[in-house]
Amino acid sequence: MNQKPVGIFDSGVGGLTVLSEILKALPNEEFIFFGDAARVPYGSKSVETVTKFSRQIVNFLVSKDVKAIVIACSTVSSNCFKTLSAEFPLPFIEVISPGVEDAALVTRNKTIGVIGTEATIGSGLYDALLKEKIPGAKVYSKACPLFVPLAEEGWTKNTVARITAEIYLQELLDKEIDSLILGCTHYPLLINCIKDVVGPVRIINAAESTARRLKSFLSSNHLENPSRSPTSPKFFVSDNTKKFDRISSLVLRQNFSASIIDIEKY
Amino acid sequence: MNQKPVGIFDSGVGGLTVLSEILKALPNEEFIFFGDAARVPYGSKSVETVTKFSRQIVNFLVSKDVKAIVIACSTVSSNCFKTLSAEFPLPFIEVISPGVEDAALVTRNKTIGVIGTEATIGSGLYDALLKEKIPGAKVYSKACPLFVPLAEEGWTKNTVARITAEIYLQELLDKEIDSLILGCTHYPLLINCIKDVVGPVRIINAAESTARRLKSFLSSNHLENPSRSPTSPKFFVSDNTKKFDRISSLVLRQNFSASIIDIEKY
Repeated sequence: MNQKPVGIFDSGVGGLTVLSEILKALPNEEFIFFGDAARVPYGSKSVETVTKFSRQIVNFLVSKDVKAIVIACSTVSSNCFKTLSAEFPLPFIEVISPGVEDAALVTRNKTIGVIGTEATIGSGLYDALLKEKIPGAKVYSKACPLFVPLAEEGWTKNTVARITAEIYLQELLDKEIDSLILGCTHYPLLINCIKDVVGPVRIINAAESTARRLKSFLSSNHLENPSRSPTSPKFFVSDNTKKFDRISSLVLRQNFSASIIDIEKY
Repeated sequence: MNQKPVGIFDSGVGGLTVLSEILKALPNEEFIFFGDAARVPYGSKSVETVTKFSRQIVNFLVSKDVKAIVIACSTVSSNCFKTLSAEFPLPFIEVISPGVEDAALVTRNKTIGVIGTEATIGSGLYDALLKEKIPGAKVYSKACPLFVPLAEEGWTKNTVARITAEIYLQELLDKEIDSLILGCTHYPLLINCIKDVVGPVRIINAAESTARRLKSFLSSNHLENPSRSPTSPKFFVSDNTKKFDRISSLVLRQNFSASIIDIEKY
C-alpha cells in the first residue's frame, strides 16, 4: 500500500504549483499528475459539468492504483469534494481547508481576503469555513477571472498584470484585510505582482498549506513511502499542448514529457 | 429544404458576433446556435482535440436537420474545415476566407496584419490565403490569447484592455500594416479599443464578411428561406453558464434562454 503513488489532478497547469510544494515536502513519494488540458478552465463552468469531469479523472487515477488523491484545483475542491469522497473509497486531500487553517494562524484583525475563480468564490465555501474556524471573522471575496489567462500567457510581472491586480484587489484593501488567501492554484504564479499590490498584507499560498496537509495525512495514517529512490512524477494530460510542457518546466524547473489520454472514456 | 434552419457553432460566445451580423443580413432565416461552454476555449488546444469536439457538434446540428453550417469559430475554421467538409455531406461556411477577400479589397500597400488565437495563427492559413489572393502581399500575424478572456470579463474599454492591445499590436503597427483582420470571432467585442490603438488602419471584421458570404451562398444555391415570419434563433450549449446568457444579451441586444445538451454523446 505504502509504495503506491499519490494521484494529483487539476483542470490544467495550476495544480503544478501544488505539486511543486508537495515534491519539496515529500521527496520519497511517487506521483501521478493529471491535467485536463482539453477542457481547461473549470473556474467559469457549472458545478454539474465540473463534477462530471472530475469523476472521469478520479476513475483514471483509480486505474493507476493510487493510495490517495490530491484535488489540486480550488474549483473542484470547493464544489465536488463531498461528492467525490462519498462516491470513491479512497482518501481525498482538498486545497481549501488547509489555507483556511493557515489564515486562522496569521490573521490578527480577523479581516481576511480570498481571491479565486468564479466557481470557487461562488461556492461560498471559503467564507463558510473561515467564519466557522475564526469566530467573528470578516471575509471579503473576489473572483479574478483574468489571473489564470495572465499566468498562462506568462504576463506575471508586466504593467497589465500589475493594473489588473490593482483593479481586482483594491476593494479588498479598502476593507483593511490583513491576510489574503490565494484561493486558486494558478495564482502563486503571480505572487510577486500580488505582493507588490497588497504590501504588508500576509499572503497565504494554499499550495504550501496543502503540501503540509498531505504530509501530515500520510504520516498519521502510516502511509508514507519508505522508498529512498522514488521515480519522477508521471504526467498525463487530456490534450497535447505545448503550454503544459512550457509551464511545467517553468514551475518545476525540470523538463518532463506528458502522455496524452482520452479522458472522456473514463 | 429551404425552410430548414442554418446551423452555427462556436467554442463559446464569440460566434454570437457572427450570428449578430447574420441576423441583420438574413432576417428570414431560422438558426440553431451551439456554443461549447463546457470545453471553451478552443484556441490553445490541439488540432486533434478541436477536430474531435467539432465533429461531435456537427453530429448534433445534423440531428437538427440543418441545411448548411456556419463554423463561427476561427480556430475550427482554420484547422478543421477540410476534414469536416470531407466527412459530412452538407455545405460548410467558414470565417477565414471571407475576411481574406475583404482584406484584398481594402489594402493599398499590400501589408496586412492578422490577429487571432494561438491555434488560428499557428495554422498559417490566413498567411497562405492572403498571399495566394494578393500576390506580393506582406502578412504579419500575432496571437492575442488575452483578448478572449478580456472580452468575456467585459473589460473591453478599460486601461487593461487598452495596454494589452498596445502590447499585442505595436509590432504589427511597426510593420506599417494598412489593414488588420480580426481573426477571432470574440475580437469584435473589443473593436473600439483596437480602433483606438491602430488609428487609421482599416479593420476587417470577419463576422461581417462571413454574414455576406452566407447570404451570397444561400442566394446562389437557391436555398433562401421564403418565410416572412421566421422564429427566433434557438440556442444550445454544453454547459449552463450565466456567462453565455449575459454575453448573448449583450451581443444580440435581446434575451434568449439556451438549452443544455450533453455534447459528448454525439
